[in-house]
Amino acid sequence: MMFWLLDAELALILEQFLFSSDAAEELKEAIAKKDHELVLLYNINLVDEVWKERPKPPNKPVRIHDLKFAGLDVASKLSFLRAELNDAGASAIIISMLDEVAWLLNLRGSDVPHSPVVYAYLLVKTDTAELFVDSSKITPEVMDHLKNAGVELRPYDKILSEIENLAKQGRNLWLDTSSVNTAIVNTYKCACDKDLKKKSKARVHDYNGRSAMPSGIYRASPISLGKAVKNDAELQGMRNSHLRDAAALARFWVWLEEEINKGAKLTEVEVADKLLEFRSMQDGFIDTSFDTISASGANGAVIHYKPEPGSCSVLDVEKLFLLDSGAQYVDGTTDITRTVHFGEPTARQKECFTRVLQGHIALDQAVFPENTPGFVLDAFARSSLWKIGLDYRHGTGHGVGAALNVHEGPQSISFRYGNLTSLQKGMVVSNEPGYYEDHAFGIRIENLLSVVEMNTPNHFGGIGYLGFEKLTFVPIQTKMVDTALLSSAEINWLNDYHAQVWEKVSPLLEGSASQWLWDNTQPLPI
Amino acid sequence: MMFWLLDAELALILEQFLFSSDAAEELKEAIAKKDHELVLLYNINLVDEVWKERPKPPNKPVRIHDLKFAGLDVASKLSFLRAELNDAGASAIIISMLDEVAWLLNLRGSDVPHSPVVYAYLLVKTDTAELFVDSSKITPEVMDHLKNAGVELRPYDKILSEIENLAKQGRNLWLDTSSVNTAIVNTYKCACDKDLKKKSKARVHDYNGRSAMPSGIYRASPISLGKAVKNDAELQGMRNSHLRDAAALARFWVWLEEEINKGAKLTEVEVADKLLEFRSMQDGFIDTSFDTISASGANGAVIHYKPEPGSCSVLDVEKLFLLDSGAQYVDGTTDITRTVHFGEPTARQKECFTRVLQGHIALDQAVFPENTPGFVLDAFARSSLWKIGLDYRHGTGHGVGAALNVHEGPQSISFRYGNLTSLQKGMVVSNEPGYYEDHAFGIRIENLLSVVEMNTPNHFGGIGYLGFEKLTFVPIQTKMVDTALLSSAEINWLNDYHAQVWEKVSPLLEGSASQWLWDNTQPLPI
Repeated sequence: MMFWLLDAELALILEQFLFSSDAAEELKEAIAKKDHELVLLYNINLVDEVWKERPKPPNKPVRIHDLKFAGLDVASKLSFLRAELNDAGASAIIISMLDEVAWLLNLRGSDVPHSPVVYAYLLVKTDTAELFVDSSKITPEVMDHLKNAGVELRPYDKILSEIENLAKQGRNLWLDTSSVNTAIVNTYKCACDKDLKKKSKARVHDYNGRSAMPSGIYRASPISLGKAVKNDAELQGMRNSHLRDAAALARFWVWLEEEINKGAKLTEVEVADKLLEFRSMQDGFIDTSFDTISASGANGAVIHYKPEPGSCSVLDVEKLFLLDSGAQYVDGTTDITRTVHFGEPTARQKECFTRVLQGHIALDQAVFPENTPGFVLDAFARSSLWKIGLDYRHGTGHGVGAALNVHEGPQSISFRYGNLTSLQKGMVVSNEPGYYEDHAFGIRIENLLSVVEMNTPNHFGGIGYLGFEKLTFVPIQTKMVDTALLSSAEINWLNDYHAQVWEKVSPLLEGSASQWLWDNTQPLPI
Repeated sequence: MMFWLLDAELALILEQFLFSSDAAEELKEAIAKKDHELVLLYNINLVDEVWKERPKPPNKPVRIHDLKFAGLDVASKLSFLRAELNDAGASAIIISMLDEVAWLLNLRGSDVPHSPVVYAYLLVKTDTAELFVDSSKITPEVMDHLKNAGVELRPYDKILSEIENLAKQGRNLWLDTSSVNTAIVNTYKCACDKDLKKKSKARVHDYNGRSAMPSGIYRASPISLGKAVKNDAELQGMRNSHLRDAAALARFWVWLEEEINKGAKLTEVEVADKLLEFRSMQDGFIDTSFDTISASGANGAVIHYKPEPGSCSVLDVEKLFLLDSGAQYVDGTTDITRTVHFGEPTARQKECFTRVLQGHIALDQAVFPENTPGFVLDAFARSSLWKIGLDYRHGTGHGVGAALNVHEGPQSISFRYGNLTSLQKGMVVSNEPGYYEDHAFGIRIENLLSVVEMNTPNHFGGIGYLGFEKLTFVPIQTKMVDTALLSSAEINWLNDYHAQVWEKVSPLLEGSASQWLWDNTQPLPI
């Protein structure tokens, strides 16, 4: 992202490709109120002008996301999308969200750290589809894959001229202005306006013989929801990758505990690097899914803490350690947080941890009617903290892609009431309540969940009732739990969870890691 | 309310005094879409034209709501209101919500069944206040009371001409279009428009010397929130009246159980009448606060069931009985629902009752940060029902006036997300989850609660944390409870509640009623 204030009173200059249309409009309105002007740059990138030694854009090859993980071939996805276009009266759609392009074409790339996506635009028309991408990334195998689905290649930098052509051809273009950049939206609008002026002189018809006065269809992308609602193959990939991830984490934790017990002085970065080493050894590992948050003591209270070599802390046997990490595998994406103490936690730390855990359990166990937006469930995760006047300042759950971005929409579980997207069967969400005491410690317990239909004995209102299936199977440190605060149902939840962890993950382990898993999944007395 | 379709294609004729401005606008828009027209009647009431023997409007005397119950004198309330006018740049406000007029003037009346209000308009200006009311209802005592607060009387039917004068005087009038009727709003707007035309010729000044182009200030009444947030005297009145109400209910229940045991065939109406008899004997009793819902068996599943003599059911020892009732006392307003079985409830009835009770307890025990809208808490009351695929189709809680309307805003606890009013210390809300099985039975458990500041050990975010204090103290039938479903914390809640019921209400009882209370407040084994 880039913006530049000239003279502080004059203008805000915006690189059009870097701002969504909605974001640019919002900026424009905001600065107009202060009598500033928004200047949109078309044919010049100011960063390029000053940054002459800028590295070239990434161009690692694109790979095919195997159908056994994707579950649905590209032709089927395109045909679903074209049915949506038809219903909306659109003759084309421009897709600029990189994870939507990747999901729709069953392709994955390495252009963005942690997110297996490719820089590209996809233009899907009622008859053809065109992928605007640097062709040097496209292997012959990928080229075949695209051809089979009727997708043609176009140079990445030809997107605007093609958008202009669309308007001239009278194609009604579907634009999701919350994600499509302002360059594309403005190009289309301007071309439509010009077109309109010409046509108002002579009534003409479009390529389908319809009277054509294209003006665009401005609504949310229909792909966002399709991508969020995982199919069986995607869910199975998520389950499998989570078990391999859990095995890597078990090996990591036993290593870490042994090192700490030996008195090793490990920095947060060293620990994160070691975790990456364990994960790298797992089948299908590709990348971390975000920058690992490896946070000792007070650093845990910094919600998006990123340790840096040289300045980061050394793990301390007397402090809490919060580890939020995840990985990209060929078949799925993981995201897990555990908070542990290597020595003796204080009563305060145990109480806070236990209340966070109660919130985690309450959300995990929630059952709710269809058509329930995520925010309705948010209070379940906070209720136990609220009882003693505590809370946390972040949402409780975000969507997670299947072998895609670790953060995705449209659903969310948060105190923000604006997102009315209901939770739907097949969606994946994180369950991550926390508590952060400034300058002292941070606690977060995070599993990923998939939304499932519950087999309730009743279906009041003639609708389905939904709940969650756990994807993450890694022990929660029982040393941190103040059992006196837990109900027997909550203790049962923890014991049952640990029994499942042992059952699912122990077959992947051996030796000390297996012993560690055994020790850490022993039931608590009720 | 009245509307009349002429020719079904022509026009909707509206009696302007009976529709709020917002409601009329909504109707107008809706029928305009179908090419119909909205005709507003000014000087004629069509009902009067055809209903020649229409009874005269009620004219029972107005009474003063004692300062010891009101807690704040009229002068203080008016001065609070005038500060609001000043902040908003308004020079007057018209108040047409009858409970707002009653609250502001510490007056009560008997013009509307169940609601102790008077037909009146109150016009508060920055200097004076005028009450538009039928003067035959005003006793010399009330006249003195009003005079002391600087409130003058005006004839009820002079409201529109006064509104017109206001516009002519250049007074900027505060109008809450959600409650002020369309006659007043239109009169003011038309007069302003005329005024504007005149003034555009010659620049004139208003009575304060300001350049006057009044156009009205359209926003929510500032009184609604002031009335909803009860002061200490109002809360004390609510507590006291609830205890007297509980004593009446205990006497009623012991009477009813004895009758049923004797094999008496009592209709739903007879039972409601008897309840009224017991309540009438209490100090300060004035009226029921709504039509009693006395519903046996399947009638309990009709949410706003009203039994009628002749057609209503006879209570049955083998059926559930739902009783939702309330009273107006000089010092407070009550609203309580209990559901009981006189014989042996089925396992299904017990399970449903217990889950409704769990929802009731979850809301009762909720602690939440300041600035939390009621809908955030709604899911707590449904969670236990949701677990087995059950739900109910009404909200969980409504506001209740202090010796005023049994339903009031602006707060609410409901699945409807539109109401963003936060729950505030001093508000009174009902807690009434339910479950209704069509053609079989209905269950609802309702207490009134006041919002209180909780003395939490922490105050994360530097804010207060709120919870509830119970106002209602009447036993919940333990025979209906499936204790196997309850956590020990929930059983403790019920036992603790019953201990409080005994402690607070037994001093008001004697003989069989006292014995009944003792029997019905015995603790459940944990």
